[in-house]
Amino acid sequence: MVVAVMTSPETPPAPPSWPLEPDAAAMRSLVEAVSERLIEHIETLPQQRASDLEDADEVARATSIPILDAGRPLDELLELLFERAIPKSFNAAGPGYLAFIPGGGIFTTAVAGLLADATNRYTGVWTPAPVLSRLELDVVRWFCDLVGYGAASLGFLTSGGSLATLSGVIAARCDRLPEDGLAGGTVYVSDQIHHSVGKAARLAGIPAKNVRTIETDELFRLRVDLVVEAIREDRAAGKQPFLIVASAGTTNTGAIDDLDALADLAEAEGLWLHADAAYGGFFLLTEHGRRRLSGLARADSITLDPHKGLFLPFGTGALIVRDRATLEASHGVWADYLPTRQDDPDRVDWCQISPELSRPYRGLKVWLPLTLHGVAAFRSTLQEKLDIIRDATEALRAIEGIRIVAEPELTVVPFSIDRPDLDAEALSAKNRELTERVNARGRVLISGTILRGVFTPRLCVLAFRTHADRVAMAIEDVREALAEIG
Amino acid sequence: MVVAVMTSPETPPAPPSWPLEPDAAAMRSLVEAVSERLIEHIETLPQQRASDLEDADEVARATSIPILDAGRPLDELLELLFERAIPKSFNAAGPGYLAFIPGGGIFTTAVAGLLADATNRYTGVWTPAPVLSRLELDVVRWFCDLVGYGAASLGFLTSGGSLATLSGVIAARCDRLPEDGLAGGTVYVSDQIHHSVGKAARLAGIPAKNVRTIETDELFRLRVDLVVEAIREDRAAGKQPFLIVASAGTTNTGAIDDLDALADLAEAEGLWLHADAAYGGFFLLTEHGRRRLSGLARADSITLDPHKGLFLPFGTGALIVRDRATLEASHGVWADYLPTRQDDPDRVDWCQISPELSRPYRGLKVWLPLTLHGVAAFRSTLQEKLDIIRDATEALRAIEGIRIVAEPELTVVPFSIDRPDLDAEALSAKNRELTERVNARGRVLISGTILRGVFTPRLCVLAFRTHADRVAMAIEDVREALAEIG
Repeated sequence: MVVAVMTSPETPPAPPSWPLEPDAAAMRSLVEAVSERLIEHIETLPQQRASDLEDADEVARATSIPILDAGRPLDELLELLFERAIPKSFNAAGPGYLAFIPGGGIFTTAVAGLLADATNRYTGVWTPAPVLSRLELDVVRWFCDLVGYGAASLGFLTSGGSLATLSGVIAARCDRLPEDGLAGGTVYVSDQIHHSVGKAARLAGIPAKNVRTIETDELFRLRVDLVVEAIREDRAAGKQPFLIVASAGTTNTGAIDDLDALADLAEAEGLWLHADAAYGGFFLLTEHGRRRLSGLARADSITLDPHKGLFLPFGTGALIVRDRATLEASHGVWADYLPTRQDDPDRVDWCQISPELSRPYRGLKVWLPLTLHGVAAFRSTLQEKLDIIRDATEALRAIEGIRIVAEPELTVVPFSIDRPDLDAEALSAKNRELTERVNARGRVLISGTILRGVFTPRLCVLAFRTHADRVAMAIEDVREALAEIG
Repeated sequence: MVVAVMTSPETPPAPPSWPLEPDAAAMRSLVEAVSERLIEHIETLPQQRASDLEDADEVARATSIPILDAGRPLDELLELLFERAIPKSFNAAGPGYLAFIPGGGIFTTAVAGLLADATNRYTGVWTPAPVLSRLELDVVRWFCDLVGYGAASLGFLTSGGSLATLSGVIAARCDRLPEDGLAGGTVYVSDQIHHSVGKAARLAGIPAKNVRTIETDELFRLRVDLVVEAIREDRAAGKQPFLIVASAGTTNTGAIDDLDALADLAEAEGLWLHADAAYGGFFLLTEHGRRRLSGLARADSITLDPHKGLFLPFGTGALIVRDRATLEASHGVWADYLPTRQDDPDRVDWCQISPELSRPYRGLKVWLPLTLHGVAAFRSTLQEKLDIIRDATEALRAIEGIRIVAEPELTVVPFSIDRPDLDAEALSAKNRELTERVNARGRVLISGTILRGVFTPRLCVLAFRTHADRVAMAIEDVREALAEIG
């Protein structure tokens, strides 16, 4: 009879286990192991593919590991992440990412997050960490100053544009509608609006059928005359128009609505004006942006996305409002177990003006890059992107068989195969094929959207790692892909 | 005439400037400078004061620096943060933090955040990073398994409990009320409920007057008989009862509502049951917790806070639901410029089940600690806290002049000076003085709440850095502070 030997003498020694509180040497080795791989990853970004989704779902299944009582070796986990998980993706960190709205993710912010998380102070309320809250307030005030808001303005950082817009809609709703009168409230947006706006209205309790999608003009800007008409019709039908949402740089084409005309209309009709400047807002740092975004400060509330125009990693958006009292009225709630409430205008209990009570200390993720690199570094980088897109537009226009669908107002240029003989479906198929062929080359990743019923490729230059050389590759790839399609 | 010399020969050379993309050596020096200070900070936590708010507002004003075109030296910024900003705070990272609901903030998660931010992949939708999304899905499925949910369940990570609860309320609202019928919807909570619940209802568009605050029993649990009565009254008045929110571990005392009875009631009445297990949920890892939280899996949706019971830094909460279709129905919206939508049940487009489109990659912040440390490390740490609170309760009870206000169900013990001769106001004043004197010693930070109209100190043991020795100091400080008050 053979007795199974349960533990063979060759069994390797168990790897060192990681207690929840590693000692200094272990913490040091953890940071070093991760940061060395990160630095290598960042340094080789220009050589990495712009996207790699080959067999991605099989890789995902094969990479998944059970979460068990026993810990696993650090090397195994880092191998899994850096060799299998991270590369199978759209490379949103790399210079070839010209899809959607890029950002890039500057390293300083990642380190600021390490610092904020490891020191773990509580910043939902002012009292528990007044100096840290003050630094965050300095960031928010800088945003308010940038758009030209006055002393009564305030705002807060969010995880991104969607939640910023949600709080903007809620502030508008509380300011303009009775709390039992949501069913009649109506909202006005363009057919180019970011879909987070309609979603925000729905999450905030406005019936989906009450969001009026209004046509745009030839520059993809909300047609103010049609908004006037829609408001009139809704009032006549007993509805309560309460909110216009303007785009200050659409995702599709970078179009900027006529902010002054919409502000005039909102004032005349007693409506709240929210501006979605998630993508466009930080171009205010440039001369071009200041000219183009004239009127933005007249909006009652504004969504900004530092993870777009300030190149931060995904995870930092902002809502700012012209009158802080509207945030307090819509988001303020108190409880017995909280520390003393602030009433000094120079302090802010963030949980009283925002939906979060516990929250990460996002302030540092904006404050550290702004103070370390200085604002000039951000301004010149945004200006570089404006210059690049101007040249790229000319280069695309020069390709025979390509036409520019809309002149870029910011740093997006939508273009199309120039085949007036094709119907929308056939042209869409051609444009899709063009996009896929460009992306298959792996040097850049572009995305498309539907404009006037046609799938339209677009090129968005915003990542801080994208320079003229990479955009030249994109143009070359478009030219060659077009030649292949014939 | 004296001409001002604008640049003196002694002007020091400008500090090295930091471009947005530092080279490898600069990135390395940045990480090293920050992590060395962090490790020192963490290693000296036991010697640091539990709170230091002396002159905090003056320090805040003096520490604030303008955000300018020019960058500043890294050393100056780190000095500002580590010497002035971080120490002026409630030390939520330290072992003496027994206030509110602690967590601590394990270092591994901070490093996971560095990794996620620096590689900056987009995980709002499945396609752009399927392997990373899969790791996050593994975390969510582990949560669902932990509470005993079935295969139809799903959920997502949030910045904290408040936004998790908000999405739970929105899912309930969409599932149980017509979208133009919010004004009549009514919600049932106990007088011990976390205030984020009432706030969530308001943000979701339910009139504040429709949130019914129901009395609790002697164990601070929602009185089910009174909920039955309130529902009956509301129906008679033409209202639409749609949601009960149960506490699975209150912030005030750790009380756990009768989850089975509330699930029975919700089923019988056709109401949605949401459970706030932000604090209590992860005690399911222990035997004690599994017994106490029986019935939790019958809730339609559950809020969990990994930044509490898994000791992560602030910034990671979760909502899980029994039926994923309810999240898709309430949070799903699509747009022309997004990648192909998923319909495979093994994949998830996070933006279709949650309010965020862009978002940070939170999955790694849970996945890395769970897989590196292993689940057993978390279980034993939670068990340690349960053991500590049991002993602490006996030690408090043994102090002459102190009484236990509620026996701890989890790891909170509320206590009071035992003076039946005093009215609520006088007793509150005494208890406040006791709390302040304990906190002034700087070894621990405790907080109080209002129970039955009386300010009541409480001691919450949850931080992974809090061990028996520190709680012994707390008991000693209570004893001595009481002796001083007389």
